[in-house]
Amino acid sequence: MDENEKRLQDKFSQLKNYLDNGDKKRFRKTYLDMHFYDQSTFYLTLNKAERTTLYSILEPDEMGDMFDTIEDDNPLIPELLKEMDLSYASKMLNDMYDDNAADVLEHLDKVDVDRFLEQMPRNDANNLRGLLHYDTETAGGIMTTDYVEFHEEETAAEAIKALKKFAKTAETIYYIYILDSHEDLVGVMSLRDLILLDDNDTLSEKMNSDIITVNVDAEQAEVAQVFRDYEFLAVPVVDHANKLVGIVTVDDVIEVIDDEAQQDYSGLAGVSMDEANSDGPLKAASKRLPWLITLLLLSMITATLINHFEGLLAEASILAVFISTITGTAGNAGTQSLAVAVRRLAVEEINRHEFFKLIGKELITGFVTGLVTGISVCLLVGIWKHNFVLGMVIGLAMCAAITVANLAGSLIPMLMSSFGFDPAVASGPFISTLSDLTSVLIYFSIAGMFMQYFVRA
Amino acid sequence: MDENEKRLQDKFSQLKNYLDNGDKKRFRKTYLDMHFYDQSTFYLTLNKAERTTLYSILEPDEMGDMFDTIEDDNPLIPELLKEMDLSYASKMLNDMYDDNAADVLEHLDKVDVDRFLEQMPRNDANNLRGLLHYDTETAGGIMTTDYVEFHEEETAAEAIKALKKFAKTAETIYYIYILDSHEDLVGVMSLRDLILLDDNDTLSEKMNSDIITVNVDAEQAEVAQVFRDYEFLAVPVVDHANKLVGIVTVDDVIEVIDDEAQQDYSGLAGVSMDEANSDGPLKAASKRLPWLITLLLLSMITATLINHFEGLLAEASILAVFISTITGTAGNAGTQSLAVAVRRLAVEEINRHEFFKLIGKELITGFVTGLVTGISVCLLVGIWKHNFVLGMVIGLAMCAAITVANLAGSLIPMLMSSFGFDPAVASGPFISTLSDLTSVLIYFSIAGMFMQYFVRA
Repeated sequence: MDENEKRLQDKFSQLKNYLDNGDKKRFRKTYLDMHFYDQSTFYLTLNKAERTTLYSILEPDEMGDMFDTIEDDNPLIPELLKEMDLSYASKMLNDMYDDNAADVLEHLDKVDVDRFLEQMPRNDANNLRGLLHYDTETAGGIMTTDYVEFHEEETAAEAIKALKKFAKTAETIYYIYILDSHEDLVGVMSLRDLILLDDNDTLSEKMNSDIITVNVDAEQAEVAQVFRDYEFLAVPVVDHANKLVGIVTVDDVIEVIDDEAQQDYSGLAGVSMDEANSDGPLKAASKRLPWLITLLLLSMITATLINHFEGLLAEASILAVFISTITGTAGNAGTQSLAVAVRRLAVEEINRHEFFKLIGKELITGFVTGLVTGISVCLLVGIWKHNFVLGMVIGLAMCAAITVANLAGSLIPMLMSSFGFDPAVASGPFISTLSDLTSVLIYFSIAGMFMQYFVRA
Repeated sequence: MDENEKRLQDKFSQLKNYLDNGDKKRFRKTYLDMHFYDQSTFYLTLNKAERTTLYSILEPDEMGDMFDTIEDDNPLIPELLKEMDLSYASKMLNDMYDDNAADVLEHLDKVDVDRFLEQMPRNDANNLRGLLHYDTETAGGIMTTDYVEFHEEETAAEAIKALKKFAKTAETIYYIYILDSHEDLVGVMSLRDLILLDDNDTLSEKMNSDIITVNVDAEQAEVAQVFRDYEFLAVPVVDHANKLVGIVTVDDVIEVIDDEAQQDYSGLAGVSMDEANSDGPLKAASKRLPWLITLLLLSMITATLINHFEGLLAEASILAVFISTITGTAGNAGTQSLAVAVRRLAVEEINRHEFFKLIGKELITGFVTGLVTGISVCLLVGIWKHNFVLGMVIGLAMCAAITVANLAGSLIPMLMSSFGFDPAVASGPFISTLSDLTSVLIYFSIAGMFMQYFVRA
């Protein structure tokens, strides 16, 4: 990779030279020969004056090819669009793949969106308006309408001829979608299969009519699962009347998979991962504080609870020594069971029967881990403090606290999911703070019962 | 999706009927018309007797197409291969895409691997042996050698004609790789561009010679990043002499992205995610216990530390009330900073200069979050206990504990990464257990200093 990078750096400085010296011809040649992604990397290194020169050198469609590869959540985008001539920017947006253009518009103010759309041919504007309508995390929100469709009676030769025309504008030509006379989707064919046909074969003879589709309202995670299972490069999206309305391509699915993983990860860590590298420490702190303060309030309930047992603590301050061992270990166990449950919920739906089976399983897992951990800590404390009654109290409390934490760790995300919430929101820190509370309650209740046996008079 | 599923269920029961009644012809027609993934889903529902019938109905290459879609870590695979006739299984493995076949063999005993390879033509066996040689988490470990290459002087018409021959066996024909007379990779062309050429155009004229490659030893995460950036469907893999040795396709990259996310997620939760749904509670417990016991031992050090301060606690048992508030909140802050650091390390390498910059930033972020949280807890405790000196002690301790936890959360993964370890191994529970220790030390040290001011005589 380092060699690739070095070569790219050399090319970038060459390009800057051409740009500064106004050598448009050489600039175009070198620039247009690069990959679109490298073009956008170069573009994002330029200052405003250089970018303005660039707009005068490149056609809107050439800019669009490059703009397609810029992440739509790049905070610079609104500024970049504003510095362009309005008609240039509109043309560029119109020349982008429509799913990418819609993603860009999604991040702009409504007024700006309308200004751009007004400049476009009415059909194209309406098409984009349609895409903007869908929830961003559904199939509709990530699909493109730049796909290739044919009618079933067309022949292979006709299809290939037409494909050559579409090759410039369609997001993929590697699958073609085949409609019947009612405009219903009746078949799919890969370009791989298409080039194997004889010129006069009709599409309907050889198409695959066992079509896997996703509904336009399907959640993006569900769409990603179809790609994982079937290893497609694109999947057709249909509306409620089963009409083809778009396709989702594999590059967008990779983004979806990254997004979903990020969401699960942030949930587990109790921190929003949109913390950009460019965020200063104050901004980073402002993003982390809401979680911390909320959890602090929850942990204050635990403090009140311990306060309630202060009499016990005054009598046996040794109890304080093991508070953090018990709350910490139970919190760790709860986080484990939470992670396993959230992961499972991400890939399958759970019905009522499985719900109770899984909870039962987690209860036993919790009890077994609790038992082993409890016996270990009982021995450790017993030997250290020469006090096996104390050891037993700690061990019992540990076993019970872990069992409860494990149960909470799987029950809470599963309940959230069955009530239609995203289970990943039940964060690790939330579970461990909650488990602090139950662990303390269990610990002091058990300690209270055995008090007279382990406190040496 | 539900309609898709229902249709599939109907088809499966129909197929079972054909299989039970020995209606081979109808079975083959219905079965072979299904998607490979649906075929494998059906196959995995069969019992051993039914599978044996299946082997007698399907040719090894038809089995291979289906076997390509079974996850290579499916624990059933060794058993499935063993129940097949040796030569049937070898033929099937040989007919699979070689990256998938190598992944399957990876999970078998060496003796079994040799038995299968001995049955294959020598070239194919050597090819698979070569692939088995690479580390599974590198480009070499996920690449296929079933790609299509041409020489630069060939024409578009020749290439398309040859492609039709490869369409059956190559893993993708959507990119072709172009070699010069020294067999060096000099160009890439997509099928999309190829079909736009005139019949007599030579490949060298129109190929893209700005080739993005990955080294055969590159880590799989690095390969995934190339796909994210450039949105390719396949990327060429080269050896140290810059010779083309294989390609990585996008379906395998989706698996890599899932794998990497899983690893980060497990690290954060302190639990290995290979806990299968089929694992019983005992097996699940046995996978979770090693982490828990290790962390328990670490938390016992914290207990010893608190024990050291037992005198303080005996004098002011109120101190025990806030142990879990301070350790819990600092642990949460540490987990946040850990998650941010691990995520950053997953996407970029960090040099020395950035190292100190990031640590500095995290130190300030930690101090700011600590300050705000500390002031909050100071007020809460002050008002609750009518004791603002106690509030100040808790607040100060909280601020210091959070600053330290934040620093540890980013320093530890960054140090691990710079010493060549996977930073994701520094799990969330590890950081929070470690932070319990430092938090307790900070808390009691500060409390000790102000003891005389907040304990009412």
